[in-house]
Amino acid sequence: MTEPESAHGLSLLFDEDALAVFLADCWPEERFVFHGDPSRFGAYGAVFEEEDVEKIIREVGRPVDVIGTDGFRVTCNDPGEAMDYHDHHGAMIYLTGLHRYPAVRELCDQLSEDLRIPSRFVTCEGFAARKGTRVPLHFDHETNFMIQLRGRKRWEVAENDVLENPLFCYFPDKPDRFYRDGLDPYSGDLLNDRLPTDLETFEAGPGTVTFLPRGTWHGTVSLDDSFSIGFVLDPPTLLEIAMSHLSRELHSNPRWRAHPLYPVREDGGYDRVFRHEVRSILREISRTSGSGDADDAINDYRSSGPDDNTREYFVGS
Amino acid sequence: MTEPESAHGLSLLFDEDALAVFLADCWPEERFVFHGDPSRFGAYGAVFEEEDVEKIIREVGRPVDVIGTDGFRVTCNDPGEAMDYHDHHGAMIYLTGLHRYPAVRELCDQLSEDLRIPSRFVTCEGFAARKGTRVPLHFDHETNFMIQLRGRKRWEVAENDVLENPLFCYFPDKPDRFYRDGLDPYSGDLLNDRLPTDLETFEAGPGTVTFLPRGTWHGTVSLDDSFSIGFVLDPPTLLEIAMSHLSRELHSNPRWRAHPLYPVREDGGYDRVFRHEVRSILREISRTSGSGDADDAINDYRSSGPDDNTREYFVGS
Repeated sequence: MTEPESAHGLSLLFDEDALAVFLADCWPEERFVFHGDPSRFGAYGAVFEEEDVEKIIREVGRPVDVIGTDGFRVTCNDPGEAMDYHDHHGAMIYLTGLHRYPAVRELCDQLSEDLRIPSRFVTCEGFAARKGTRVPLHFDHETNFMIQLRGRKRWEVAENDVLENPLFCYFPDKPDRFYRDGLDPYSGDLLNDRLPTDLETFEAGPGTVTFLPRGTWHGTVSLDDSFSIGFVLDPPTLLEIAMSHLSRELHSNPRWRAHPLYPVREDGGYDRVFRHEVRSILREISRTSGSGDADDAINDYRSSGPDDNTREYFVGS
Repeated sequence: MTEPESAHGLSLLFDEDALAVFLADCWPEERFVFHGDPSRFGAYGAVFEEEDVEKIIREVGRPVDVIGTDGFRVTCNDPGEAMDYHDHHGAMIYLTGLHRYPAVRELCDQLSEDLRIPSRFVTCEGFAARKGTRVPLHFDHETNFMIQLRGRKRWEVAENDVLENPLFCYFPDKPDRFYRDGLDPYSGDLLNDRLPTDLETFEAGPGTVTFLPRGTWHGTVSLDDSFSIGFVLDPPTLLEIAMSHLSRELHSNPRWRAHPLYPVREDGGYDRVFRHEVRSILREISRTSGSGDADDAINDYRSSGPDDNTREYFVGS
């Protein structure tokens, strides 16, 4: 057994013994809680030292989501409106894009190296909540390191044995459209019939790091005014890695970049052309995938450059 | 030749003769300009009758992009800031999400029926510009019906013979990351060496409808204070239609939903496991695609329900 060449990022989250346990027994599938001295966070903890949540929202310059107890969720463009929910209505402010702070981006990049995840899939989010705010039990689709910076929070957590490798978060009180009527999108089973009964509870204080494997059930109550940040690992799925690689090759052919817009006047012509083209692209995918090279696909995934095959358009970047 | 069963939406855009020409000779690949009486727009024109752009921005409730002459582009969360660029700095306001107005959504749905494009891929955008505002020559990746509601605009347009079926918009003055250094992402050719020289110019006034096939070069100058809206047809590519269908099937297996997070301590273990899994999913895609059914893929595309395989997450919807 050898340590990863660098574990700079993880060494900031855990002490030496905890890091050894984490890497040997937990990563990537078992949850892990470590209580340490918050001073170890140094530069990136200092970014959020001031108590001024509104200032952070304005600096990051993105709309924020506000999450209330009974499934309430709203996006606020106006920082003042978000603060009103936070201060007076028991709602948590959920900030994304904290990796825009250089010190935070640096830690993201270190975790990216430590855990071999391309850095564009490692981001940082923040959670601000007044004392008494409750976020109900739910699971997310990403892997998280949650870091308590200010105040205490009571957690309840449980392993997810209802849905392996979820693609979307799930709130039992308010299933979104991917879990219509609270159903497992694959099996059709009612997810709420199988909520975890054996919850582990613990208290996080300033300096506590909680590693939450993908899909872990969790809920929190803030015991004080609380501010925490989460380092989020959200790489694509194995299928998406393969598909993205195949897309790069197949989208280089203008025929497969075509939109299905065909003449609509002649009876049947539309359907005939469309069906023929879809049949052709299915055959072409089969051929290309059958001769596809795993290392090329992995190189595409690792390449930190922009992905010409995605639809993302980052204005101004 | 038979007319489509319904051409409600197109009948609002064109008169009877123009509609026959459009369907016979233009759709989906040739541009077409029709000058008609703006009163025919009825209910959806009335939505934007007031001159108050800021009110529209606030009603739609989304951040807007502001686009200036020399490639300047910025996203404004604050409607007042956007109006300042619009009123005092010669920039155009680009509003998305106008299909949130019921009368506009209705026309989107009618165009969706007329042209056989699932309605979730038919949306409406708005363009507000003071007299003298210039938007430089560029091309987009969608198919558009541009409708001039207020003021006059001079257009210059040309067929795109440099890049068939583009996936992203291209501004020669400011290529974005998909056209790094102004290169064709597929051939590596310099796109700006082949800008169109044979531009057609025309003037649009209230009531003019301009059909712009995907990728058409276009630029505009506002001759008056101008407000126009665009009905945008942006379905997925043939490749994406096939991939989305395959994803629905393959993502039902938790193995292919896995993220590539593997132990990082043992030398070589990470690479070995990752390569094995990618090789396996490539083979599985080849098998599934080889036996894939075109009609099933087309049904997935047409289904108006939410797509369980996308990563979109519409908060609050």
